Amino acid sequence: MAVSPIPGTVFGPRTILHHMRAARLHEYTEAMDDALSIDDVDTPQVNQADHVVVDIEGAGWCQTDNHAIEGMWEQYMPQDLPMTLGHENAGTVVETGDGVSTVEEGEQVICHTVMTCGTCRPCRLGEDMHCENIQFPGLSTDGGFADQLLTNERAVIPLPDGVDTTDIAPHADAGITAYHAVKLAARELNPGDHAVVIGVGGLGHIGLQCLNAMSPVTITAVDVKNSALDLADDLGAHHTVNPSEADVADEIDDLTDGNGAHQILDFVGSDETTALAPDVVAAGGDHYVVGYGGHVHEPSQALVNGDFSYQGTLVGQYTELQELVALVERGDVDLRTSRYNLGEINDVAAKLDRGEIEGRAVITP
Amino acid sequence: MAVSPIPGTVFGPRTILHHMRAARLHEYTEAMDDALSIDDVDTPQVNQADHVVVDIEGAGWCQTDNHAIEGMWEQYMPQDLPMTLGHENAGTVVETGDGVSTVEEGEQVICHTVMTCGTCRPCRLGEDMHCENIQFPGLSTDGGFADQLLTNERAVIPLPDGVDTTDIAPHADAGITAYHAVKLAARELNPGDHAVVIGVGGLGHIGLQCLNAMSPVTITAVDVKNSALDLADDLGAHHTVNPSEADVADEIDDLTDGNGAHQILDFVGSDETTALAPDVVAAGGDHYVVGYGGHVHEPSQALVNGDFSYQGTLVGQYTELQELVALVERGDVDLRTSRYNLGEINDVAAKLDRGEIEGRAVITP
Amino acid sequence: MAVSPIPGTVFGPRTILHHMRAARLHEYTEAMDDALSIDDVDTPQVNQADHVVVDIEGAGWCQTDNHAIEGMWEQYMPQDLPMTLGHENAGTVVETGDGVSTVEEGEQVICHTVMTCGTCRPCRLGEDMHCENIQFPGLSTDGGFADQLLTNERAVIPLPDGVDTTDIAPHADAGITAYHAVKLAARELNPGDHAVVIGVGGLGHIGLQCLNAMSPVTITAVDVKNSALDLADDLGAHHTVNPSEADVADEIDDLTDGNGAHQILDFVGSDETTALAPDVVAAGGDHYVVGYGGHVHEPSQALVNGDFSYQGTLVGQYTELQELVALVERGDVDLRTSRYNLGEINDVAAKLDRGEIEGRAVITP
Amino acid sequence: MAVSPIPGTVFGPRTILHHMRAARLHEYTEAMDDALSIDDVDTPQVNQADHVVVDIEGAGWCQTDNHAIEGMWEQYMPQDLPMTLGHENAGTVVETGDGVSTVEEGEQVICHTVMTCGTCRPCRLGEDMHCENIQFPGLSTDGGFADQLLTNERAVIPLPDGVDTTDIAPHADAGITAYHAVKLAARELNPGDHAVVIGVGGLGHIGLQCLNAMSPVTITAVDVKNSALDLADDLGAHHTVNPSEADVADEIDDLTDGNGAHQILDFVGSDETTALAPDVVAAGGDHYVVGYGGHVHEPSQALVNGDFSYQGTLVGQYTELQELVALVERGDVDLRTSRYNLGEINDVAAKLDRGEIEGRAVITP
Repeated sequence: MAVSPIPGTVFGPRTILHHMRAARLHEYTEAMDDALSIDDVDTPQVNQADHVVVDIEGAGWCQTDNHAIEGMWEQYMPQDLPMTLGHENAGTVVETGDGVSTVEEGEQVICHTVMTCGTCRPCRLGEDMHCENIQFPGLSTDGGFADQLLTNERAVIPLPDGVDTTDIAPHADAGITAYHAVKLAARELNPGDHAVVIGVGGLGHIGLQCLNAMSPVTITAVDVKNSALDLADDLGAHHTVNPSEADVADEIDDLTDGNGAHQILDFVGSDETTALAPDVVAAGGDHYVVGYGGHVHEPSQALVNGDFSYQGTLVGQYTELQELVALVERGDVDLRTSRYNLGEINDVAAKLDRGEIEGRAVITP
Repeated sequence: MAVSPIPGTVFGPRTILHHMRAARLHEYTEAMDDALSIDDVDTPQVNQADHVVVDIEGAGWCQTDNHAIEGMWEQYMPQDLPMTLGHENAGTVVETGDGVSTVEEGEQVICHTVMTCGTCRPCRLGEDMHCENIQFPGLSTDGGFADQLLTNERAVIPLPDGVDTTDIAPHADAGITAYHAVKLAARELNPGDHAVVIGVGGLGHIGLQCLNAMSPVTITAVDVKNSALDLADDLGAHHTVNPSEADVADEIDDLTDGNGAHQILDFVGSDETTALAPDVVAAGGDHYVVGYGGHVHEPSQALVNGDFSYQGTLVGQYTELQELVALVERGDVDLRTSRYNLGEINDVAAKLDRGEIEGRAVITP
Repeated sequence: MAVSPIPGTVFGPRTILHHMRAARLHEYTEAMDDALSIDDVDTPQVNQADHVVVDIEGAGWCQTDNHAIEGMWEQYMPQDLPMTLGHENAGTVVETGDGVSTVEEGEQVICHTVMTCGTCRPCRLGEDMHCENIQFPGLSTDGGFADQLLTNERAVIPLPDGVDTTDIAPHADAGITAYHAVKLAARELNPGDHAVVIGVGGLGHIGLQCLNAMSPVTITAVDVKNSALDLADDLGAHHTVNPSEADVADEIDDLTDGNGAHQILDFVGSDETTALAPDVVAAGGDHYVVGYGGHVHEPSQALVNGDFSYQGTLVGQYTELQELVALVERGDVDLRTSRYNLGEINDVAAKLDRGEIEGRAVITP
Repeated sequence: MAVSPIPGTVFGPRTILHHMRAARLHEYTEAMDDALSIDDVDTPQVNQADHVVVDIEGAGWCQTDNHAIEGMWEQYMPQDLPMTLGHENAGTVVETGDGVSTVEEGEQVICHTVMTCGTCRPCRLGEDMHCENIQFPGLSTDGGFADQLLTNERAVIPLPDGVDTTDIAPHADAGITAYHAVKLAARELNPGDHAVVIGVGGLGHIGLQCLNAMSPVTITAVDVKNSALDLADDLGAHHTVNPSEADVADEIDDLTDGNGAHQILDFVGSDETTALAPDVVAAGGDHYVVGYGGHVHEPSQALVNGDFSYQGTLVGQYTELQELVALVERGDVDLRTSRYNLGEINDVAAKLDRGEIEGRAVITP
């Protein structure tokens, strides 16, 4: 556990850290191997009734962290640099505000990615990702690549006994993002239908398992890496296609008697993967854009004639993270992780950038 | 009624035309004012148990006819030129196959755009636009810019008394296409929400009225022509915006307290109109691509961060045309039409191409 | 306004009532004309961060108040007598807890019927009526037939300018209950379909208008009182049936070509009205049980063969009250009310019990 | 194969049976052990373009057959005695009408329970069980407890290679009925939710497996027979309760932290099982009434306060039988059957009446 008392700290009845380590972004850069610096910063303070401080025991590294380093989120989120990254967090509650009643100190929790208000209309509708007062630790406020994280009561989910906080951390974002898109797709799928999972990396290998657990359909996994396709095979994919070796549209056409796949879960979102839709999606189907490396670019007529959608999806609701935790508890979703110290964080950034991380890397401050 | 006996025709107990006039496309062209020729062709023959021949009393001219002339549908539909255009048809049944039981000679009908089989899985699911054996008169077989049209039992809807076949013809495609998209959008709209209708022409002026009838929301109409905005105002739009005079995103932002519009119905589908989505659609909303003049082109990240979709829609089901006829019977949808003879058909093509048709032009063979 | 200072009250910078009048139930009884006593009680105190105290300017009298007096809610809700009744409340905020940010003193509000927690799973899903920590002022805690009411931030909705708090009060329960059932029914209705509204009283006359605003269908209203049917006619019913004069099933059969009505909204819920379902509901339809005077009693086989449901509905969500307020602001729902002083409350109870109240009675403390 | 030529039959290029054996009901009776007589009747004739004659290789015996013998269906279906029972049929196509294109002689098929028209609005909507021109072989016309069955093209589903027609026959009704209810329930279930299956007999043991395949939830099976609970355990139930040994409501309360089960699938439909709903169904949940032995009898207030429904369900659509066949092909649903000759049919009737059939009995004419 990360909490190492720093000399000079005054300890009272509750152990208080005055300083802690945090991996911070000082300026946008393309240089992944030197992107973040490990700074000595103040520990977070509870100053609202609903605040919760969590000792971080696992914080997953996400493609979005690379994108944030490159500055891709600046136009979508208010970002005040330097800022601590890290939005896939789990650990132990160390302090709570006066109004908090659903968790207490010492309880192990996974942190939903965002802090929401609970009183705006989107929160009331259960659409907490659209909260009008949203804060996104790791993208708009300090995140979890640090000893401690400040979040709030509406963000924390107590974990069942026997679940390891480090192991489960990536579900906070990779997991829920994959689960959310799969849940939407599963509603449109019937036995006998065909679904395609594009990209069997951090998100995709979770999405594939969720899809298998939630929908009795035939699944084809697509990835440019054969090792990823081997993983897909292990995790229950019925067919695999490597686009560098075979034409994806032809393969799907063969597998579906020319009807196409009813739902595409695109965990890559590049120019090449989104361009598959007109040839691969069945009439009336959907292409879920979950990853976001490139552009969607098609004639309007292709969407009209194919009667299909490009459906962007953003993370998922708190209640969906509860549901994913239930799947994990059932043993339906097995997360492939590798662990790294906080000091290794720039190596992790660079490795993911080069496509060298299998499954999910987790930082253990 | 259009059926003028041609000299030499032998009349028996059932009046049979051996020849008829038909406006046919012989080659793809950009020259709208000389695109179709009025040919003398054989009348259609019933040679399947479910065949129905209809004397055409109204056949609407659609932007899709212009697109078909330009060859835009060649890659999406098998087309064997010369071919009679015309896919918005209504008239009187003149002959039926032996297996037809739901309509009879002399009955007035509107023709759903496509001939479907009723036994494939999509037909069974009610998704007849995805029929595996679909035929699309006017795009894949001879259409209704002619004295008579060959269609089948699954395509014809008997009309209530007092409905004029010429007046209602454009609902066969323009109407049902608009209705279908609106019905999908209406399911996502609640009182207090905001919707945007882009393009108040042939489809849009129907869509606007359907939306008003089906969903108690605030509607903003967008069009580059002030006359179209005046029509929108007449038909119940709460706000109008001319993009050549004001910034659409700013206007919607003001009208929605910065939340955006929950549903966009884009009856234009140009580069400019689809580009509005990231700035105009509320989180979790949808941009329906109904018109198809240009391209969708956005970063995947815009769809992800905005949590919105581009949803292509293609015409609509037979049962939706029944529902639209019910709306017409209630007086909820008022179609603005102008009538033209078959001989004027190239003028109509050219006028629509220049944006000079208000509402919908109907050919009366 | 109801706040009359009581001698001896000490006034500080904020006007504080130490005592107030409240209409309280001391024991369950069938004697409506002497059911409640006007007691002198302490004013409510803010002692949680989310508490809100409202000066009551309108409190609707509901059939549920009669049922509560008779003891019908004792088995479903914890009730500690004496208790102040009144669950349809609107007025002006006079005090708020420290954590309240969405309303302030002096603001006019309508009060959703229940106080919810915002952190349990049902609240997170938007199903606040299923809150695990629910409190129901007027049924489980002191209600609004009093000068002031204690509720919380999650229960209050600020009103648009120009809405009269006394006029709108019944929407807090009668309105939202009717709206909620109608919203569920409307999702299943298409143009051309037929719906039946049973009971055009306090709830039914709202439900009828909501249905007309939300769904372009044909509506038949059923009531044993011709004055209620006249009101239905005024409010847009297309047909009316008085079961004491005609057979409801025969009438619906005639009006629907033998298909039945797709959705029934039963605001009475008596033995007689629920018994209509097997003969009146179309295959695949639903009979919404909103009122609850009697029993549902049918062979299981009737439900199976008719492929229909009896769907109980309980009030509605906070967000649905927002939507109903939007409908009121549009002018789509006109509430018929009559006003009474707090001292007349037992007369109101007795009158409603005898079916002598048209529309909704509102108490103005 | 069951077709044994009868002396005197004239054989032409197509083998034609002039007579065949059929188990027929001559009058309603309570005496199951002598209910049907094996008659010598004419073989069915193709006299419509869509007719299909099937040599029966398996015909499942259903509780509904017992109910039909008792006369329980007389008021719901036109029945002209004597009539051949049997509505769970599979076999080999032996003759087709001229208009049939999707199956041919010699092809193995399972028969959807009903013959539908394909042109009425319910058929067009995919709701073929609500077909306005429905015929129900075995309940309204001659059924499959015979050498051959007359049905139509819209009723037959070609089987994948390797599926045994006798083994799969019960899916034609028991299977699809269970699947249909489970599909509706599964849409309302999320990981972490709890569902209850009441009655693990012919339908229930299929429903349980479908639920496990389609929804990752916790399932409790309820049955008065411990052997049925053992079967449930084998087939994946997480908990079992025998109501003669424990209080079902208490057990579900314990298993769900007092929240109740979100969906109940009641394959019994007796007074006792439907009476469980108010104490067992979670707020907002549904009690599916699939079996129909007794009555639903509850105060309207119980439905209102519990915010739950009694949802009757009737068989399922043709497309759902396609989906169920896909589940069978995946190996997700294992049918427990025992086989009997046509001559043993009254023994089967009597055994099921006494609750002595495990799984499903199949007649092999």
